Amino acid sequence: MNRRRFTRHLAATVGALSLGRVGRSDGALVASTLRVDGDRINRHLAELAEFGKNSYGGVSRVAYSEFDKQGRAWAMGVMREAGLTVSIDPAGNIFGRRAGSSPSLEPIMFGSHIDSVPSGGNYDGDVGSLSAIEVARTLGLNKLVTKHPLEVVIFQNEEGGTVGSRALIGEVHAADLAVVSSSGKTIGDGITFVGGDLATLATVKRAPGAVAAYVELHIEQGGNLDREKLDIGVVEGIVGIGQWEVTAEGMANHAGTTAMSDRRDSLLATARYIDMANRVITSTPGRQVGTVGRVQAFPGAPNVIPGKVVFTLEIRDLDQAKVDNLYAKVKVEGDAIGRATGCTFSYTSLHHSRPAVCDARVKQVIETTARGLNLTTKHLPSGAGHDAQHMARLCPSGMIFVPSVGGISHAPKEFTTPQDVVNGANVLLHTILALDDTAWS
Amino acid sequence: MNRRRFTRHLAATVGALSLGRVGRSDGALVASTLRVDGDRINRHLAELAEFGKNSYGGVSRVAYSEFDKQGRAWAMGVMREAGLTVSIDPAGNIFGRRAGSSPSLEPIMFGSHIDSVPSGGNYDGDVGSLSAIEVARTLGLNKLVTKHPLEVVIFQNEEGGTVGSRALIGEVHAADLAVVSSSGKTIGDGITFVGGDLATLATVKRAPGAVAAYVELHIEQGGNLDREKLDIGVVEGIVGIGQWEVTAEGMANHAGTTAMSDRRDSLLATARYIDMANRVITSTPGRQVGTVGRVQAFPGAPNVIPGKVVFTLEIRDLDQAKVDNLYAKVKVEGDAIGRATGCTFSYTSLHHSRPAVCDARVKQVIETTARGLNLTTKHLPSGAGHDAQHMARLCPSGMIFVPSVGGISHAPKEFTTPQDVVNGANVLLHTILALDDTAWS
Repeated sequence: MNRRRFTRHLAATVGALSLGRVGRSDGALVASTLRVDGDRINRHLAELAEFGKNSYGGVSRVAYSEFDKQGRAWAMGVMREAGLTVSIDPAGNIFGRRAGSSPSLEPIMFGSHIDSVPSGGNYDGDVGSLSAIEVARTLGLNKLVTKHPLEVVIFQNEEGGTVGSRALIGEVHAADLAVVSSSGKTIGDGITFVGGDLATLATVKRAPGAVAAYVELHIEQGGNLDREKLDIGVVEGIVGIGQWEVTAEGMANHAGTTAMSDRRDSLLATARYIDMANRVITSTPGRQVGTVGRVQAFPGAPNVIPGKVVFTLEIRDLDQAKVDNLYAKVKVEGDAIGRATGCTFSYTSLHHSRPAVCDARVKQVIETTARGLNLTTKHLPSGAGHDAQHMARLCPSGMIFVPSVGGISHAPKEFTTPQDVVNGANVLLHTILALDDTAWS
Repeated sequence: MNRRRFTRHLAATVGALSLGRVGRSDGALVASTLRVDGDRINRHLAELAEFGKNSYGGVSRVAYSEFDKQGRAWAMGVMREAGLTVSIDPAGNIFGRRAGSSPSLEPIMFGSHIDSVPSGGNYDGDVGSLSAIEVARTLGLNKLVTKHPLEVVIFQNEEGGTVGSRALIGEVHAADLAVVSSSGKTIGDGITFVGGDLATLATVKRAPGAVAAYVELHIEQGGNLDREKLDIGVVEGIVGIGQWEVTAEGMANHAGTTAMSDRRDSLLATARYIDMANRVITSTPGRQVGTVGRVQAFPGAPNVIPGKVVFTLEIRDLDQAKVDNLYAKVKVEGDAIGRATGCTFSYTSLHHSRPAVCDARVKQVIETTARGLNLTTKHLPSGAGHDAQHMARLCPSGMIFVPSVGGISHAPKEFTTPQDVVNGANVLLHTILALDDTAWS
């Protein structure tokens, strides 16, 4: 099915949506009450947490580490138990396939990742990956066959730059392969390490429309749902990120003998810049965020006025024009600070990703599905990057968020309640069913 | 002579000061026209610059390095040529002694150091050390014998914490010996390396009054004399230094998913602190300086709000009460910033040295001597630390500054004109003569 055909198809699906259509004679009855096995997902979460477990209650299972490899092997075992046909693509992504009744249809893909940041938690990525497997298992146990083939995906190295999903849009280049990942291995060596094949890496690229839809369940990584005591986040899109390295240059000098009035202190200039950037970002209404996360002064001695400071500036918003405008404002005000302090600011680009808007119809399906399950919802952007942002370039894509207690993520204390995990998995299950054709084979 | 006796003696000397008293029959004639050999000092500066010479035109002759050892051996050779009796004390300081006509008198000590900072220049320390040797040589060549014994000193490891002079006041302890110096060696190993003897280190301590006076010629390491086109700086004292490590603590969180209003950004708090500290320091009249020279944010990733920032704060002034008051003000305002940003600031002491005031009579001798040589003068504090600050606890001490072009120091571009070097050496020569008794043996 090409993209246009799927769009018509999806519109029909959403229009006809109810939680009562299935692909066997007693389908309506089974599907309306269909639920994942919540205990099994939570047990699987605990089992996966053993791989790379650290003493803080979280995991360090960075991509391409031995623990990552072990966790992947375990996950592939779970996929096989769930009746999926498992393979590793040349980019190192794990796919668990389940045939549909109409093999000519493009697959519906859903999943997440299981690699972690260094000293990460047990929910980021894991919830979406294990729920996706459970959704497939639930269909199998209930002998339900979707019209579309299904692909449960575990993308490799999401935390180190969404490498696996970028490969699907053909954007992993030679320079990316040379980057040293948190594991110590280059991304190229890492892909080989986890069972990929660099020689045929380019073949994993999929054409727009070659995937029917992509859905990813994930913890929020922010405190909105938890604070407002809501069950399900319907993701509006993934924010665009502008990330720059800024260099402030002044004049290094002796901190004892250089009068205050004679200084060109690049750290003083940087301090004023950081405060200014915060003011610029917060003085415009909206949900944009801006961060200075890294800073280093040179030469960096207590008794030397810093002649150079290197720091990072990051701005995120769902609207690229807003990112651009805020950056332009910060630059202009930065120049003024430079003039006042005898310093200069110069910029190099570190990382840029454009906002990815979730498909309106997929959002509607998630919303309707959640309400059908008596769950409360909130539409919100994802401030974090996800594999879904690349998938959005290939097919109608959406994300389901579940609450993360205190908004904590990328840390051992990251926690999502068992009930929220199960809620998310059931929304995923019925979203996939709704996205599939209503006419079962 | 005990301290009180010397004080009376010095008062008499200063009162009788003229550039016309010497210790031989034609003394008055010789001494009034007595001058160092300027070409020789500048030639010696160039020769010393070969040891540890770097490609930027400066030297890296850090204490206890092979280059330091070679430079010291060369300097001891020059001392012997100048007629001095050379020895290395158990702390590794080099002494070149010249007998006085009244052996019972305490020695007058003068000199500096020849170790450099990493990638330093050719004047800091060297000018004072080589001029001191030249002063002794000039006396010898002119067959002048002072009443007091003279000690030309080259203190070891001035740049790494005025270690050699601290040993003379008995303040080099076991913990200091374990500190790793810029050479990579511990200070203890370094002392042994340059010919000291740790077993008898404690014996180098001198009692207050056991030295008649100490005078050090040094480049200014600041731009005052150069900017005002003045010849000689009469140093009022060496500023006290308060140095703290400050830790700002907030909450690390995801830079994409944490709303601006939910943040406890320790780097934003630090930025406001640095700007505030600058304002507090500069809003009080005076010559005090305050510097934040080092800063590090944790975890230090572009996409993580820093949960912790560690930075240094340094305040210097000739008045200890001012250092204390400014620090107290900064702390109070820092607490307010902490409350406004949801962060805290905590402090640990890094380094503290109390101001050392130069002896009023020694200053007067330097002033009168310089004017007698038709040189212009300015009284000013030393913003940098010097061996003289410790010597001031043992005896009446003073420092003579010569201009440093552009105020540059601790850098390869450090430069003092040959004429200024010679001016300084002649002021040192006649200051030593004036400090000695007027009645030659």
